[in-house]
Amino acid sequence: MTESPKFVTAAMLAIGDELLSGRTKDRNIAYLADFLTLSGIDLREVRIVPDNHNEIVAAVNALRTRYYYLFTSGGIGPTHDDITADAIADAFNVPIDYDPRAISVLEKHYKAREIVFTPARKRMTRLPQGAELIDNRVSAAPGFRIGNVFVLAGVPSIFQAMLESIAPRLETGEIMQSVTIDCDLPEGAIGTQLADIQQRYPDTVIGSYPRFDGEHYSVQIVIRGHDLAAINNTRKTIEAMLDALIGK
Amino acid sequence: MTESPKFVTAAMLAIGDELLSGRTKDRNIAYLADFLTLSGIDLREVRIVPDNHNEIVAAVNALRTRYYYLFTSGGIGPTHDDITADAIADAFNVPIDYDPRAISVLEKHYKAREIVFTPARKRMTRLPQGAELIDNRVSAAPGFRIGNVFVLAGVPSIFQAMLESIAPRLETGEIMQSVTIDCDLPEGAIGTQLADIQQRYPDTVIGSYPRFDGEHYSVQIVIRGHDLAAINNTRKTIEAMLDALIGK
Repeated sequence: MTESPKFVTAAMLAIGDELLSGRTKDRNIAYLADFLTLSGIDLREVRIVPDNHNEIVAAVNALRTRYYYLFTSGGIGPTHDDITADAIADAFNVPIDYDPRAISVLEKHYKAREIVFTPARKRMTRLPQGAELIDNRVSAAPGFRIGNVFVLAGVPSIFQAMLESIAPRLETGEIMQSVTIDCDLPEGAIGTQLADIQQRYPDTVIGSYPRFDGEHYSVQIVIRGHDLAAINNTRKTIEAMLDALIGK
Repeated sequence: MTESPKFVTAAMLAIGDELLSGRTKDRNIAYLADFLTLSGIDLREVRIVPDNHNEIVAAVNALRTRYYYLFTSGGIGPTHDDITADAIADAFNVPIDYDPRAISVLEKHYKAREIVFTPARKRMTRLPQGAELIDNRVSAAPGFRIGNVFVLAGVPSIFQAMLESIAPRLETGEIMQSVTIDCDLPEGAIGTQLADIQQRYPDTVIGSYPRFDGEHYSVQIVIRGHDLAAINNTRKTIEAMLDALIGK
C-alpha cells in the first residue's frame, strides 16, 4: 500500500501602505512563491493589505484558519507604522508585551556594535504571548511564529534570512514536478487540442502561458503533477499534437 | 463651504496558478498601483488566487462589494485554463455566451492578418451578459467591464493597453500628494520622535521605509496627504527633528 501524497498549503499576507501606493515594488511574494514550490509547499493565496489594524487582523484570521501555514511580511520594525505584532496578538486574542528573549538578543547585538538601545528599537521586542522567536542574522531584531503564522520582516534581505532560519522546521509535502514545452505557435492555434488533452490526462495539470515579444506570440506549456511518469505521458501526447499541427 | 475630498477606492485580483508557483513574476500589481495612485484612486487591497472557479468567484464577490472598483488580471485567453469570464458571470449570477460585438472585433482583426478564427480564439468572445467591451490595441481580444469590475488580460503589455483604454472613463478622487525625506539615520534612532510627530500632525500620514544596502541602514520618510500646506508643516517639523538629532 502506498501512502497518498501529502499536501501542505500556505498563504501569504504582505502588509504595507507602500505596496499599495506603488512606492515600493514588492519582492517578497515572488521569492516566497519560489521558496515554497521548491520546498513542496503549495502557496494557494496571497493578499496585500495596508497598515491598518483591523484589515490586518481580518486578513490574518481569514488566512490562518484556511491554510496550513500563513507567512506575513512587513510591519515589524521600530516605527509607529509598524503595527503587525499588535494585530497578530489581536487576531490570536492574546496579550502582547516586551519579550525577555528578544530583549536579550537585541541587547547583545547593540552592545557589540555600540548602538543605543532606544525605546523605538525596544518596540521590536514586543511579541504576542506564546510566540517563538525567528532568528534574523541580518539585523538581529527577530521575527516570530505563533500557531501556524510566521511573521517576517518586509525588507527583502531580512525576509529571506528569516525564511532561511525557519526552513528546517517547516513541514513539507511532495514536491510538485513540472516540465515546460516551448511552443512557437500562438495559444489560439492550440487551445482546443490542449483542452482535449487536459480532459484525457486528469492526473496532470496543463498550464498555458502566452508570451508576446511585441511582434510574435508564443506559448509555454507547463505540465505539473506529483508523478513523473504521468507528466511524461502528457508531455508525449502534447508533443505529438504539436508535431501534427506544424506538419512534422 | 468647501467640498470634502472625494475618495475612490479600488482592489485588484490577480488570477493564475503561475503567480503562486513562482513560475511567473507578476508585474501588473505594481503597475496598477502606480497607475491608480497617479489617477487619484486609492488601491486598498490586492489578492492573488489560482485558476480555480470557486476561489475566483469568492474573491470577486468579496472585493467588488467592498471597494468602488475591482480590477482583475489574467485568465481571459483562448485556452482551457482561462476561466475568468465564467467565474465573473457566476459571481454576478448572469449567463455567459458568445458576444456578437466581440466576434465582430476578432473577425475583422484575424481576417486582416489571415489568421484562422479557431474555436479556441472564439472562446475569447464569451462574455457575461451585460458586459461592456474594453479595447485591446495589442491583440484585439477584448477585456470587459461588468458593474464595477474591470476584467483585464494577464500579459503585461495587454494589461497596460486595456488600462489605457479605460482610463478616461474612470471616476477619480483627489490625488494623494507626498513628499519624501531621505534620512541617513536608521529607523531605530528616529522612531520615537517620528511617532510623536505623527500624533501631533494627524492630517498627514507619515510612513517610514527602511533600507539596507548590505552595510548601512537608512530610511525614507514619506509624508502623504491631500493638503500640500499640511504636508509642508509636517515636513518642516520632521526636518527640524532630524537636524536636532544629528546636531546641526
